[in-house]
Amino acid sequence: QGTRDHAPAQAALRERLLSAVVSCFKRHGAAAIDTPVLELRETLVGKYGEGAKLIYELQDQGGELLALRYDLTVPFARYLAMNKITNMKRYHIAKVYRRDNPATTRGRYREFYQCDFDIAGQFDPMIPDAECLKIVHEILSDLQLGDFVIKVNDRRILNGVFAVCGVPESKFIPACSTVDKLDKVPWEEVRSEMVGEKGLSPEAADRIGDYVQLHGGLELIERLLQDPKLSQNKLAKEGLGDMKLLFEYLTLFGITGKISFDLSLARGLDYYTGVIFEAVLLQQENEHVEEPVSVGSVAGGGRYDGLVGMFDPKGRKVPCVGVSIGIERIFSILEQRLEASGEKLRTTETQVLVATPQKHLLAARLKLISELWDAGIKAEMLYKKDPKLLKQLQYCEDTGIPLAAIVGEQELADGVVKLRDVATREEVSM
Amino acid sequence: QGTRDHAPAQAALRERLLSAVVSCFKRHGAAAIDTPVLELRETLVGKYGEGAKLIYELQDQGGELLALRYDLTVPFARYLAMNKITNMKRYHIAKVYRRDNPATTRGRYREFYQCDFDIAGQFDPMIPDAECLKIVHEILSDLQLGDFVIKVNDRRILNGVFAVCGVPESKFIPACSTVDKLDKVPWEEVRSEMVGEKGLSPEAADRIGDYVQLHGGLELIERLLQDPKLSQNKLAKEGLGDMKLLFEYLTLFGITGKISFDLSLARGLDYYTGVIFEAVLLQQENEHVEEPVSVGSVAGGGRYDGLVGMFDPKGRKVPCVGVSIGIERIFSILEQRLEASGEKLRTTETQVLVATPQKHLLAARLKLISELWDAGIKAEMLYKKDPKLLKQLQYCEDTGIPLAAIVGEQELADGVVKLRDVATREEVSM
Repeated sequence: QGTRDHAPAQAALRERLLSAVVSCFKRHGAAAIDTPVLELRETLVGKYGEGAKLIYELQDQGGELLALRYDLTVPFARYLAMNKITNMKRYHIAKVYRRDNPATTRGRYREFYQCDFDIAGQFDPMIPDAECLKIVHEILSDLQLGDFVIKVNDRRILNGVFAVCGVPESKFIPACSTVDKLDKVPWEEVRSEMVGEKGLSPEAADRIGDYVQLHGGLELIERLLQDPKLSQNKLAKEGLGDMKLLFEYLTLFGITGKISFDLSLARGLDYYTGVIFEAVLLQQENEHVEEPVSVGSVAGGGRYDGLVGMFDPKGRKVPCVGVSIGIERIFSILEQRLEASGEKLRTTETQVLVATPQKHLLAARLKLISELWDAGIKAEMLYKKDPKLLKQLQYCEDTGIPLAAIVGEQELADGVVKLRDVATREEVSM
Repeated sequence: QGTRDHAPAQAALRERLLSAVVSCFKRHGAAAIDTPVLELRETLVGKYGEGAKLIYELQDQGGELLALRYDLTVPFARYLAMNKITNMKRYHIAKVYRRDNPATTRGRYREFYQCDFDIAGQFDPMIPDAECLKIVHEILSDLQLGDFVIKVNDRRILNGVFAVCGVPESKFIPACSTVDKLDKVPWEEVRSEMVGEKGLSPEAADRIGDYVQLHGGLELIERLLQDPKLSQNKLAKEGLGDMKLLFEYLTLFGITGKISFDLSLARGLDYYTGVIFEAVLLQQENEHVEEPVSVGSVAGGGRYDGLVGMFDPKGRKVPCVGVSIGIERIFSILEQRLEASGEKLRTTETQVLVATPQKHLLAARLKLISELWDAGIKAEMLYKKDPKLLKQLQYCEDTGIPLAAIVGEQELADGVVKLRDVATREEVSM
């Protein structure tokens, strides 16, 4: 349940998609690493907040207690700490596992790919963070998914907001996870959850509401830096100062048009410590699609400066910032679009079918195809001793093979091969 | 235990290796599929003989009973039956899991990659089987692993041998697994296991010994076809007839030089029904390697005509033949060879580092690198506001970046960029 086979057409689409993502990661100088699907359970414990209950555990089989990885970020942090690496730019594309309620039509599975790019190391502020946003911008633009916006916020700003609104520090995390719902439900509901379930005072909730409903650009950052309350809060001030710097860099990258500083963005995971961001596709008015599927966020990430330290015996920290591309959701969109277009994706790359027009010519086909393979040419033949020519040409049309190399009695006698363009039926002897 | 992280250098080597294998599979017209790492336990039960005890099972978490896949062949058969596919040529490269005793120096892990190519469908005899052998030949030649031999046999010939030597049918499988050890231990030991543990009569064992120590080429096939006992056995005769046909096709492919018809080859898995094969590297005398590591078989496979039927409710059979490339062992060899050579594999593909020779030029770097990325050029910069030029050039040398694009105050004033060849120190303004 919640897993799926990929048939050749889907595997081909996924290969195309992943190769666009990998190209971008390589363009930004990242190296690949690989880690096992299995991790020690203790590695995953205490990293995911409420997500922990979704971890797949293996049976105790008399050895170590193991679990399937839940994401690629925690294994990356474990890898850095284990190998005492303080400086690395890496990408990792692999499957992760969550014992969640699958919603497969919306691209949510129990086994799914993650595509992560992360920069670890002590650097000058906001330069790697800005690059992560540039990467999201490049990938979403390359894939032509339609209009999108990348929401940006900072955990320090959020915590500053909670502090100046009179929320006790012990309630920052619950307040944060409630704010995170603002993209799905109206403020009234969020407010009542804060006051009811989370036990904030109505006054605090109202004050929070004034802040978290704000979104904008540089001018909003400037305004909040002047905000009489917020500007007195050390964390918020730091966060806003960095946010201003980030916008400067994003202006140089020429991508602020798609960036929104959005105080309602909170992100679910516990381990973020600074900048956080999330890209969402903007729903297009499209009359041809009967039921537009809401796909939600297609990329997200942020800064997590404390995670590596959790794996180091001496608690040595390695600051990190990273981005995860929501490849499954993007895949769902592209799959639906392909289906709607009626376009048929080729599942093989075969350039030529080796064919014979008469019987008793299997040996000639085997000899010719062997030569082609040895020359690096992608070639197929039917696995029949004496297939009909029509069947052979039909196979070309069915699978998109553009050429047929035909060798018949006459060709054998003349020492030539007849090359036929399957679509135009043009033939040349060579 | 028995798993490992791949650092960037290893991941880069693996990418190079896998891409050679994928190229070959695509050259032969295979489509890719993907299946989940998780399978229902019941899918895996009863397919692996003694291997079954090595299956990793997941904790019963209140849903389906799951296990990690043990190979890619059973999931492929399950996929064909589930989707009622009777005809397919596919490759699949993915990780499989075995709770085995790891021997990591010999490239044996609990988590490891398999690279499988299989042809499913009802075809004329030996044409797909010959292609599988051609694929092994191409890959091992491409990778320049040194001299190798591909041993070929047929389960029907082995069973025929057992039958004419007086082994009761119930003991075919145990006898088969004993014969399989002939590549590691001398005949005397194999014989005593047959007589002792497996309970064959000494006479039967001796008669088997006369057959299974034979290996050769077409002339051996011809000789056995004339063998007074073997030629009376229906199975053996079928197997030998097909073996002769196979050798005809392999002659047309020009690869019989590396093929040995070897009656001692048995292969461990239960599901083989016809042709079986295994490629082994021939140990080279090399004085430079102090402890030559025995790597055993580097590819194997065979025909399994009954497996798909086990997953079909009506037992409909789909004949299959396939090959699995032993990528982990090949990886170990290439890794050791790379280490011995002292060659350093680049882990990134960065073409140019954007650098500045003076302070206060971060904005210029960010603007230039953004242009390069947008033009599809692989570019990096140091994540420092004011890095020293020497440090920037040192980074190029450390990571193998061939070019530096330098933009200083003068270049900015002139509206140019200075492009520097890191190795030769040549510079041009452009």
